[in-house]
Amino acid sequence: MRVGLCQIDTRVGDLTGNTARILAAVRAARDAGAQLCVFPELVLPGVPPRDLLDDEDFVDAVVAATHGLAEKLATCPPVLVGTVVRVASTQAASRHACTGGRSVDGSSTPPGPREPGSFTRLRYGGPPLLHNALALLEAGKIAGYFGKRLLPGYDVFHEPRWFAPAPPSSPAHVDGVPIGPLLCEDLWSENYPDDPGLDLRQQGARLLVCASASPYRPAALSARLHHARRAQRAHPDVGPAAVVYVNAVGAQDELIFDGRSFVLDEDGRCISMLAAFEERVEVIDLKAAPEEVRLPPAPPREAELRAALVLGIRDFARKNRVHRVYVGLSGGIDSALVACLATEALGASAVTAVALPSRHTDPRSTEAARRLATNLGVSFEVTPIETLHAAAETALSPLLQRAPSTDTTLENVQARLRAMVLMAYVNRRGGMLLNSSNKTELALGYGTLYGDMAGTLCVIGDLTKLDVYSVARHFDDGRGLIPRFILERPPTAELREHQVDPFDYSRVAPAVESILQTRPRAGDEHEEEEQRLAQQVRLAEHKRWQTGIILKVSDRAIGTGRMIPVTRG
Amino acid sequence: MRVGLCQIDTRVGDLTGNTARILAAVRAARDAGAQLCVFPELVLPGVPPRDLLDDEDFVDAVVAATHGLAEKLATCPPVLVGTVVRVASTQAASRHACTGGRSVDGSSTPPGPREPGSFTRLRYGGPPLLHNALALLEAGKIAGYFGKRLLPGYDVFHEPRWFAPAPPSSPAHVDGVPIGPLLCEDLWSENYPDDPGLDLRQQGARLLVCASASPYRPAALSARLHHARRAQRAHPDVGPAAVVYVNAVGAQDELIFDGRSFVLDEDGRCISMLAAFEERVEVIDLKAAPEEVRLPPAPPREAELRAALVLGIRDFARKNRVHRVYVGLSGGIDSALVACLATEALGASAVTAVALPSRHTDPRSTEAARRLATNLGVSFEVTPIETLHAAAETALSPLLQRAPSTDTTLENVQARLRAMVLMAYVNRRGGMLLNSSNKTELALGYGTLYGDMAGTLCVIGDLTKLDVYSVARHFDDGRGLIPRFILERPPTAELREHQVDPFDYSRVAPAVESILQTRPRAGDEHEEEEQRLAQQVRLAEHKRWQTGIILKVSDRAIGTGRMIPVTRG
Repeated sequence: MRVGLCQIDTRVGDLTGNTARILAAVRAARDAGAQLCVFPELVLPGVPPRDLLDDEDFVDAVVAATHGLAEKLATCPPVLVGTVVRVASTQAASRHACTGGRSVDGSSTPPGPREPGSFTRLRYGGPPLLHNALALLEAGKIAGYFGKRLLPGYDVFHEPRWFAPAPPSSPAHVDGVPIGPLLCEDLWSENYPDDPGLDLRQQGARLLVCASASPYRPAALSARLHHARRAQRAHPDVGPAAVVYVNAVGAQDELIFDGRSFVLDEDGRCISMLAAFEERVEVIDLKAAPEEVRLPPAPPREAELRAALVLGIRDFARKNRVHRVYVGLSGGIDSALVACLATEALGASAVTAVALPSRHTDPRSTEAARRLATNLGVSFEVTPIETLHAAAETALSPLLQRAPSTDTTLENVQARLRAMVLMAYVNRRGGMLLNSSNKTELALGYGTLYGDMAGTLCVIGDLTKLDVYSVARHFDDGRGLIPRFILERPPTAELREHQVDPFDYSRVAPAVESILQTRPRAGDEHEEEEQRLAQQVRLAEHKRWQTGIILKVSDRAIGTGRMIPVTRG
Repeated sequence: MRVGLCQIDTRVGDLTGNTARILAAVRAARDAGAQLCVFPELVLPGVPPRDLLDDEDFVDAVVAATHGLAEKLATCPPVLVGTVVRVASTQAASRHACTGGRSVDGSSTPPGPREPGSFTRLRYGGPPLLHNALALLEAGKIAGYFGKRLLPGYDVFHEPRWFAPAPPSSPAHVDGVPIGPLLCEDLWSENYPDDPGLDLRQQGARLLVCASASPYRPAALSARLHHARRAQRAHPDVGPAAVVYVNAVGAQDELIFDGRSFVLDEDGRCISMLAAFEERVEVIDLKAAPEEVRLPPAPPREAELRAALVLGIRDFARKNRVHRVYVGLSGGIDSALVACLATEALGASAVTAVALPSRHTDPRSTEAARRLATNLGVSFEVTPIETLHAAAETALSPLLQRAPSTDTTLENVQARLRAMVLMAYVNRRGGMLLNSSNKTELALGYGTLYGDMAGTLCVIGDLTKLDVYSVARHFDDGRGLIPRFILERPPTAELREHQVDPFDYSRVAPAVESILQTRPRAGDEHEEEEQRLAQQVRLAEHKRWQTGIILKVSDRAIGTGRMIPVTRG
């Protein structure tokens, strides 16, 4: 069997555009001989659609688009496409989520009468009324739905909010081959009592087809391979199965999907793997039994992080029609890396770097910023904030008199004046401000709200300070792109004379990362310091509530995957 | 039977403090003759604990605190207290969430070996391993757990993220009375296939005891009474039951719990209702069969909203140890209302009002602000921003040259300079900035990011512009507290000469509210305007991502109950 792996990128809510992209991919796969085309999870509505699914009109439109797609594909090979489907009825569906008593109904009519403009969820009370599903489109019709059974509700996954667990499905037959359709978490069944893949194989499926929307993190690919190999293994009842795993690619707000769809033969050999972070449509002949693909050696972690963040910036800008970004270039490592990544993502002509020196700025900082901008080819402007700083001192003098020397008020004032200037660029010329906060300082609250914490997209907000250095060095690669002054100077906010960051990052950055991951490393020699850091992390929670969108590249980022109360004892 | 309704306020994560409050309430109820004490849902860990539950050490501490509480209450009447409990084992618990095959095990040991410092959720994959439960504390022991079966996953409720649905329970017998313990959504079973209350009654329960953490919204009380009366009604199999409903009180970040615990006799008559928005411990004799309580007439909606927001401010400040708040008092209605609410919540001595006039500020605005501050008795300071404004024009002149007259850059500059000044107060003197944005302008993006959108707590961010007026008038109550100039002037941001808000709020505010509630009112004469507003709401999503904590008083507020993508087609 020849399977078309359609690793494409769609846009949440853009049903017309997404339909066109799906059609194009199917036609390309058909022309390359595919007998079955497989798309990622939720590819039609875009992933994740989140509370757009609370809008009955949107759900109606997705259902209609699924039917429309089936019609348009009448002369194409069968297609498995990620979409949503209403549960057959509230009562029935919730029950057979447990009992497996009935199959999913693809009806476009929700249960019971519905008034125009009514909506699912504000009834206050009641289970979700949708399934996350694969539709099998065949001969111009929807031949069946295969619903997701295991719904992740951890980290950035909030699926039980919108979806009911689907009842078990039976295999689909495509060209005489019994295939078992699965959706993402269905394959990651290790910790669940149910095993959807095994259930399908016990009913005869010889090929597991898993449609996913699995975001990037450094360990993601090896975890996917682990789970796929676990799911395909021979079992007392059944022989081994091959696996086709099709992952989403592209970025959506904080999430970055890395693609790397793959095929495992029955022996667990990876016989094909699609590119990372790029759209690909490839047709793989499962019968050709090639030698195990010599996968290129995994790139270093820094290269992956770089590619992920570049895609995150590029897709956020493209999908939101942002044509220009601004980076406040301080001469420090964080903003330097953001400028590098933005330039790679959007091209030099879309990036404006702005230096905003104050009286505390080392002239070498601005000079290094200028050299970096020149090396990158981006436009570079200097707006000194000295006159603003002085005006602020005067305007605030009644407030500031008797200020102790340790007071940080005027440091924060400088940071906020810079944000004001940068946002004036945004307001005047259009585009958006990129934020340069790293994860370590966001965790510790070592940043100024409405100051250096401003910016819609936090490019490196999920990189620890150590990651920032290693990705920057990887980017520079000894080319001298990033001036040595930036790479080698001690970290400083330059908000006061002779200021340097009050942290030994080599110890603090990993400690803070453990705290964010609810993984305190108690009992070691630095326990007292860690307690203090943990307290600092707690006190800064209200700042994180107000940050922009942080591109997620770790197991636990700050964003919708972190629901820590601000108020706590 | 005499039941102690313990409507108390606890603090998320403060197990020591919460234990002390629970003990005090039980002793008070015991002294008043209670035979059973009932507390709100999750009262021991504090509600909602959210991702604190991902920390195994915290869960261990909650389990230990539950045992400790039981020991300390050895000589007290039986107590039903909201806490969490680990599922008996992953496999078993998930299965009998469906089959009801086994009861909940209160063991403090998680299933399988656990390494020190390991944690539940970063395994990536797997169902939740906790139940949201009531523990029955009796004679110094935990006599049993009753787990929540229906887990809300809509609006601000994300319970399937942490909790597995519990298997059905059997009634508990207290002083010979078979009681049926329920948790919040268990009573709201109207739209679910399962009916936990009926299941308990069919096993003999004659008294349903529902522990809740149901946040305030205008329709909440009538909905609770509706659901309680529906649950208690006679059924072909079983006679009617009485209902004891104990709700949480107090605020936690965006959530405001309003108390108003109540008792229904078997005929559905409300024989007792505790105060709204206040802690109360009252003992009600169910057998006394009093006449139906003449409930005081429901206060007007404005009075409820005012009381809710006052509690929201007060608890946020108290629980976060914030002793001073700042309000930028513009002479407009929004900040005037925030100042009134803050003063009522925290006392005049905790509030500093700051006027920040620019060249575009009508002198009557600042004068009205001063009169309001005087009337409220709060300290009032004036920091003109003219010199800063002028300095910004100079500093930004290279950017601003050739600015078209419609450009809003300098308007936003003023708003951001004001935020900078207000935050200087916060940094210099301690405390926090209150935000004065209303829901209508937050929805439309009619506000300046890092400017007037700054502030940790958004006091009126869930009031439409029309609500703002009606609550302000209610507050004023004809007393002349709020100057007439403020109450009657046309809404304006005063960022430009002769500027007034470009909206007819009487039409736009309700339209925007419908859009936020995913309830477009298509087909009416203003459809085109509504389409335009809906588009404006979409484009402002990135601003809302960066707002502070918005006190929730409506069915759907901006905050964790709204998960709308920024990027969308």
